[in-house]
Amino acid sequence: MYRVTLQKTVNLLIKNAKCEAKMLHLSGMKLTKSKVWSLGKINHIALVTPNLNKSTALYRDVLGGKVSDQQPLPEHGVTTVFVELGDTKIELLHPLGEKSPIRSFLEKNKSGGMHHICIEVDDIQRAMEDLKAKNIRLLNEKAKIGAHGKPVVFLHPKDCDGVLVELEEA
Amino acid sequence: MYRVTLQKTVNLLIKNAKCEAKMLHLSGMKLTKSKVWSLGKINHIALVTPNLNKSTALYRDVLGGKVSDQQPLPEHGVTTVFVELGDTKIELLHPLGEKSPIRSFLEKNKSGGMHHICIEVDDIQRAMEDLKAKNIRLLNEKAKIGAHGKPVVFLHPKDCDGVLVELEEA
Repeated sequence: MYRVTLQKTVNLLIKNAKCEAKMLHLSGMKLTKSKVWSLGKINHIALVTPNLNKSTALYRDVLGGKVSDQQPLPEHGVTTVFVELGDTKIELLHPLGEKSPIRSFLEKNKSGGMHHICIEVDDIQRAMEDLKAKNIRLLNEKAKIGAHGKPVVFLHPKDCDGVLVELEEA
Repeated sequence: MYRVTLQKTVNLLIKNAKCEAKMLHLSGMKLTKSKVWSLGKINHIALVTPNLNKSTALYRDVLGGKVSDQQPLPEHGVTTVFVELGDTKIELLHPLGEKSPIRSFLEKNKSGGMHHICIEVDDIQRAMEDLKAKNIRLLNEKAKIGAHGKPVVFLHPKDCDGVLVELEEA
């Protein structure tokens, strides 16, 4: 009777140790898999236009949207107009200055077109580290201050199905 | 005293008539200017991809987005996957069948790209009449039932700064 109880105790100890080891393993996996950054809403869809007044009139007068004033941003080489639509917006972009980063886009797409989408993230540093580790090429090595005064990074279109994706820290 | 009062009464009548005429004019202007349909939120941004599994993995596993199952829509010639982002979504599209309407887009843009934006409206019939009157060309003469089972119309990209705009009755 005593031996049986001892055996049972030993078995129980082994079982318990195995269980704890498994728990530790699972907990480690959870830590590895847990998200260190999160994707938020779409901040804006950027459209490049050859005629900012005409596009502003389209979204304001023809479609009846709520449209901002024109905002020249010489340090970014663009003039912007925002169209508010639900919790996101369309950003109309027109080149400003000779070195505008969207000038070549407009040369290739003379009528204008869809330029990029911008998705919010809660932590851009962690997002950038994580994406680099997942072999997504970043167009800027360090987060830079974007047109809205917040840190942004652009992802390589070739790693995002031909789409230029901007991440902005919300 | 009597004549003065009469004059005052006549003046008052004239003033009143002028005021009423002005009111009528303003009310007419208001009626002319009042909106008969309204623009709502962005329903989705459609991206065409050459590899739906790879794109789904990008938005789900790499970017950590909330992604739907693949939905084949043979009557629309596409397979779709939705990525929920705030109150809007990205719609990943891949051609389904030989007559898919997005096949030519993929031939021109082999890596994929941004295809269209879809904005909600409250009354598609009125929106279509109004837009036609404002010289915006519609790609379908009558509203048709779109991929989400709701009436839609596509606006000519040449009238929308090179961007294909879909309106969907919410």
